[in-house]
Amino acid sequence: MRTEMWRAAHRLISHRSKNLCDPRWNPNFHNSIHNSSGFTYNFGRTCKPFNPYLIRHGSDVQKYIYPTRDYIENLHGSTEPCYGKSFRIQNRYYGSASTKIQRNPIFSTINSDDINHFREILGEKNVIQDEDRLSAANMDWMQKYKGSSKLLLQPRSTEEVSQILKYCNSRCLAVVPQGGNTGLVGGSVPVFDEVIINIGSMNNIISFDKVSGILVCEAGCILENLISFLDDQGFIMPLDLGAKGSCQIGGNISTNAGGLRLVRYGSLHGNVLGLEAVLANGTVLDMLGTLRKDNTGYDLKHLFIGSEGSLGVVTKVSILTPPKLSSVNVAFLACKDYLSCQKLLLEAKRKLGEILSAFEFIDNQSFNVVLNHLEGARNPLPPSMHNFYVLIETTGSDESYDKEKLEAFLLHSMEGGLVSDGVLAQDINQASSFWHIREGIPESIMKAGAVYKYDLSIPVEKMYDLVEEMRVRLGHSAKVMGYGHLGDSNLHLNISTPQYDDAILAQIEPFVYEWTSKHRGSISAEHGVGLMKANKIHYSKSAETVQLMGSIKKLLDPNGILNPYKVLPGSLASSS
Amino acid sequence: MRTEMWRAAHRLISHRSKNLCDPRWNPNFHNSIHNSSGFTYNFGRTCKPFNPYLIRHGSDVQKYIYPTRDYIENLHGSTEPCYGKSFRIQNRYYGSASTKIQRNPIFSTINSDDINHFREILGEKNVIQDEDRLSAANMDWMQKYKGSSKLLLQPRSTEEVSQILKYCNSRCLAVVPQGGNTGLVGGSVPVFDEVIINIGSMNNIISFDKVSGILVCEAGCILENLISFLDDQGFIMPLDLGAKGSCQIGGNISTNAGGLRLVRYGSLHGNVLGLEAVLANGTVLDMLGTLRKDNTGYDLKHLFIGSEGSLGVVTKVSILTPPKLSSVNVAFLACKDYLSCQKLLLEAKRKLGEILSAFEFIDNQSFNVVLNHLEGARNPLPPSMHNFYVLIETTGSDESYDKEKLEAFLLHSMEGGLVSDGVLAQDINQASSFWHIREGIPESIMKAGAVYKYDLSIPVEKMYDLVEEMRVRLGHSAKVMGYGHLGDSNLHLNISTPQYDDAILAQIEPFVYEWTSKHRGSISAEHGVGLMKANKIHYSKSAETVQLMGSIKKLLDPNGILNPYKVLPGSLASSS
Repeated sequence: MRTEMWRAAHRLISHRSKNLCDPRWNPNFHNSIHNSSGFTYNFGRTCKPFNPYLIRHGSDVQKYIYPTRDYIENLHGSTEPCYGKSFRIQNRYYGSASTKIQRNPIFSTINSDDINHFREILGEKNVIQDEDRLSAANMDWMQKYKGSSKLLLQPRSTEEVSQILKYCNSRCLAVVPQGGNTGLVGGSVPVFDEVIINIGSMNNIISFDKVSGILVCEAGCILENLISFLDDQGFIMPLDLGAKGSCQIGGNISTNAGGLRLVRYGSLHGNVLGLEAVLANGTVLDMLGTLRKDNTGYDLKHLFIGSEGSLGVVTKVSILTPPKLSSVNVAFLACKDYLSCQKLLLEAKRKLGEILSAFEFIDNQSFNVVLNHLEGARNPLPPSMHNFYVLIETTGSDESYDKEKLEAFLLHSMEGGLVSDGVLAQDINQASSFWHIREGIPESIMKAGAVYKYDLSIPVEKMYDLVEEMRVRLGHSAKVMGYGHLGDSNLHLNISTPQYDDAILAQIEPFVYEWTSKHRGSISAEHGVGLMKANKIHYSKSAETVQLMGSIKKLLDPNGILNPYKVLPGSLASSS
Repeated sequence: MRTEMWRAAHRLISHRSKNLCDPRWNPNFHNSIHNSSGFTYNFGRTCKPFNPYLIRHGSDVQKYIYPTRDYIENLHGSTEPCYGKSFRIQNRYYGSASTKIQRNPIFSTINSDDINHFREILGEKNVIQDEDRLSAANMDWMQKYKGSSKLLLQPRSTEEVSQILKYCNSRCLAVVPQGGNTGLVGGSVPVFDEVIINIGSMNNIISFDKVSGILVCEAGCILENLISFLDDQGFIMPLDLGAKGSCQIGGNISTNAGGLRLVRYGSLHGNVLGLEAVLANGTVLDMLGTLRKDNTGYDLKHLFIGSEGSLGVVTKVSILTPPKLSSVNVAFLACKDYLSCQKLLLEAKRKLGEILSAFEFIDNQSFNVVLNHLEGARNPLPPSMHNFYVLIETTGSDESYDKEKLEAFLLHSMEGGLVSDGVLAQDINQASSFWHIREGIPESIMKAGAVYKYDLSIPVEKMYDLVEEMRVRLGHSAKVMGYGHLGDSNLHLNISTPQYDDAILAQIEPFVYEWTSKHRGSISAEHGVGLMKANKIHYSKSAETVQLMGSIKKLLDPNGILNPYKVLPGSLASSS
């Protein structure tokens, strides 16, 4: 097979001056690479009104299945379920080490005067005590964390947010800012009886500058609505998430959401140009610049990007949006080893450079789980055992040039032995089926048994060593799988066992965190810290840095009313 | 001429399926656009070892001419020269409003015990009291600001920086961190007798990961050395400055340097992955992550990017570097009005998208000054009066595809009437001559007379309104010129008069700052605040934001020893 392909590649290269993918020049071409009837199908050309930005693939977030109660308990390794407690219970247990959290007695509890005051500020209908509405807002969408708040407030303006916070601060009422409540680490729901401030009613687009591509909007805008709005203008959001139908831009920014476009457009720290945020004492910080360049003093907006609502409530956003590009291509490739995947990434960055928009990798173990457990999943390649699979997507401004560029790159990679086999999507369905495999991994793994999941960022050269070491460590007792955003050094390490086992967990943790820490990795690449990892932050951040975070928290929120118990270790947070 | 071009463009479009730039297909093509003999010359192909990254154009920084003493006085509108005072003088005057700065009496003065202590830490040769060396370090490279420090320290490690700061903090000795001393706002030199901490000896490259493109190095590395190092590895720095031969990466980060690649690669907030910084009390903050994704707590490194050494001394840096791309093309175009420039930018972002690497604009007034005063400057276009000129550069991974893309874009722009005339560089000399015009503007304007210079960032739609309003305001008494980085909304507003005139300055300021403020612009797009604009920061930042900056300064540097008198208004800085 290998030799045959090699020859085919050489044949192709000898035809380079002609159109290599045109069957007139090279009738053997298609068969030499895959079994599909065509080579590249460029979506933008014939599938209108197909919009690659709107239909695109979800991330792990999207595929996260609502876990059963058993699953939750398994995942956390605690016999104490972490939800369902009533407001009267003052202790909660979270995490694999069953960390005990006590309600901070410094916080007041809501009384009728408070309710009346909030009604004066917001009007009756925006002060919500209805049990059903509260029940939904008290629980995260995975049903993994549940609070006992008795009050949800729906401000419609920055001024109302300011008045709410000023009052809560003076009364020492703890609050939890809530956007679309799609977080994965318990950051967006109350732990005890914190007042929920839901930003969803603040959902106006304020301005859009078509020349500069700068969008200004309120924090409660749902990401998908912004994507649709921009699509009409010929632009895209620089981030895209599986949860886009529910998540809000304020929450995206507060959690520094990563998502599918990070490899191309970078993090929100680079794309967010300005913010408006309200501090715990009600002070409105207008940092809502719309400039790419502004070197006047400390750039304080970055404090609010990724601080998960613990330093202030983001109310408005200014964001740089890239123009929509018309040409999207997707390839599904096989590599013989992890080193080839790395080299292929390096080549892709160099050869595809400016059009590369995704570079995902899947190991053989993950791939097999998908084929065995995911409905509709089909191996795009001829049956053969490969150790690694890579999904490459390009997005560019010119259909024919981009296609030729990708084809030339793939030929070169085959010739160099980096790619063992591969197929290029010939239509939108095929492209979707490739993404279906990548996105279906979490769901498939959960169908296969109990799962221990870790979202890690590790320097790319070392990343897969952890998977291999874990395999040695666990032997035959578990199936260890690695996949993720190779282009961003983001590994999703998943360990599957027939059923949950405390002894396995003890072999995984804290080893996985210690290993990640030793290699200067991050124990939370994109999901944040929230409640889940507040006491694990030291694995990724130095003691001095965490100490300074605590000092900044105390400076901005002296009473610790903003999203207490989260982000920082209990020993440091001012609410403890 | 216009009709002829229009027809030519149409002729070209009818030949689209052929190679449009090949004279065999279209013998009239060249003449239809310009008088040069060729259309596009792609540097990467035949000019080896030409390296577009190494020889590239300087920015305004590079072209800034050493001003005469008269010029300095004129620029500042003060009859009190702002330099040359001895250490014994305790008051200084700066800025157009002749702001008086007093030495803060809280700071100690150096004594022999201090010197001995520093010698113990650093060794004798790194404790510098030599007058000549101090004289150079006391003055900025424009000779605009001069301090009276009696001591320069040259640490070789983070540990030494830590020991220095810990001691200075305990003794209340003020310090000024100094890199290449190429700043334009007086941020890198002492105001009075602050101890100079020069980081230049910390110039080691620590690691480079070729797969991820992540470079880790010490803060004293000279930018050009990093560029050369990366060039050998097939990568580039995401920033490039005219001052690259002297400026250091620690200084670049501390001033959030913009430069020539911002339109393509974004700001340092997006590209810097990690930092190590030493706080005023000697605490070393290890935030030296090498990860694109790390959502574990507050991302504190951003506090040190652009805070001009007033919150800590940056000692190590981790930065994401893009792969070097082989294909560079430069076009020089004429547009009939500013609206066409804006529309052309929008089209360029959409059509060239991923290969666009510079989009600079020059108004007719600036262009004429260059033609009249810059040696070797020649109009690349046939003699004709155009209102605006645009320089477009593309950088991509594939020579032929990129070239064709740019050609197609230019044809489309001609057809749509956005471009009135234009020429594409056919060789490196022609490309350099185009850049020479753009980069020669500051020098030419200074040759033409007295000049009042402003570095502003204003939303692109409003940007040129300021130039026009200023013309109306000043009438025939001054020549008002606008040019700059249109792709980044960065306007360089230059006002030229035969000689300096207080009455003119009074008409310009504070109007220019107020106008910029009213349109939510920045009074310092890329140069920073330093000493020059510390009391003007309120024009671009809200009172609450500046107040919080002051609180953060006090938190991180309670004695205010780090780079005093700068960045923040005197009324807020903890040193006042």
